[in-house]
Amino acid sequence: MKLKQFALVGFGLLVATSAFAQQKAEDLIKTRQGAYKVIAWNVGRIKTNVEGQFNKDEVLKAATAIQALANSGLGALYAPGTDKGVGYHETAAKPEIFDPNNKKIGEVAGNFNKEANELAKVAAGGDKEAVKVQLGKLQQACKACHDDFRKEDHRH
Amino acid sequence: MKLKQFALVGFGLLVATSAFAQQKAEDLIKTRQGAYKVIAWNVGRIKTNVEGQFNKDEVLKAATAIQALANSGLGALYAPGTDKGVGYHETAAKPEIFDPNNKKIGEVAGNFNKEANELAKVAAGGDKEAVKVQLGKLQQACKACHDDFRKEDHRH
Repeated sequence: MKLKQFALVGFGLLVATSAFAQQKAEDLIKTRQGAYKVIAWNVGRIKTNVEGQFNKDEVLKAATAIQALANSGLGALYAPGTDKGVGYHETAAKPEIFDPNNKKIGEVAGNFNKEANELAKVAAGGDKEAVKVQLGKLQQACKACHDDFRKEDHRH
Repeated sequence: MKLKQFALVGFGLLVATSAFAQQKAEDLIKTRQGAYKVIAWNVGRIKTNVEGQFNKDEVLKAATAIQALANSGLGALYAPGTDKGVGYHETAAKPEIFDPNNKKIGEVAGNFNKEANELAKVAAGGDKEAVKVQLGKLQQACKACHDDFRKEDHRH
């Protein structure tokens, strides 16, 4: 193969690799946006229940979904290359969340998991007031992360 | 209040109600698109594990997330008014899925839940081959619904 041909093939591979990487990043961003959308839906369902008629079964289903998503390893959706870009919409993640030296990330993520696990436990008990209190704690955990790591101009 | 004023207020309320209903429908469509995106991500993670190095812990987390979403009551995301429209993208749901007399819906949905519950059980066992077989059954359940109720030109 002549050098020029070799260079062209090399360039072609580079473009293909880059396009693949971009598609993969877009897919990860979509998935994390989808995950938070589903979490928000389930938080909303529990909120409706604690503010009105309480359906223990629906609350438990919603809390179990939040718990499973929280524990599923959402951190993998913040892979390198996903710090900028468009999934379903422009990412609302701040650059700070991609800084491996930022210790606050583990703290807010761990706290979210803790409160989500506790909410599932409390939901299994079926006590409306207890669920209300624990939902508040989960929402505080969500807010703590949003305050530090989500851009103000986010859209869902 | 004069009749004309009354009519105008009425018209204003109608527009507001209609805008609210449309926003709510858009939100439900986004949530269901997000839910299937997250399910697909977790199916993909398990697929990678059964085709390569098997990480029992990751497989169990992914299977638990699929199970919790399958059991969370996704049917509520197909509320009246969500048969047409744009969430993150144009809905790929066929009109048939909104037909309350279509008995196939309960069948495919029930089968998806059954296979998702079984996958979580098998994943807890940690046997790679057994997970591979059960993942295949879950994927068949996904396909059965897609064949009947998802438009060909869907996008994720």
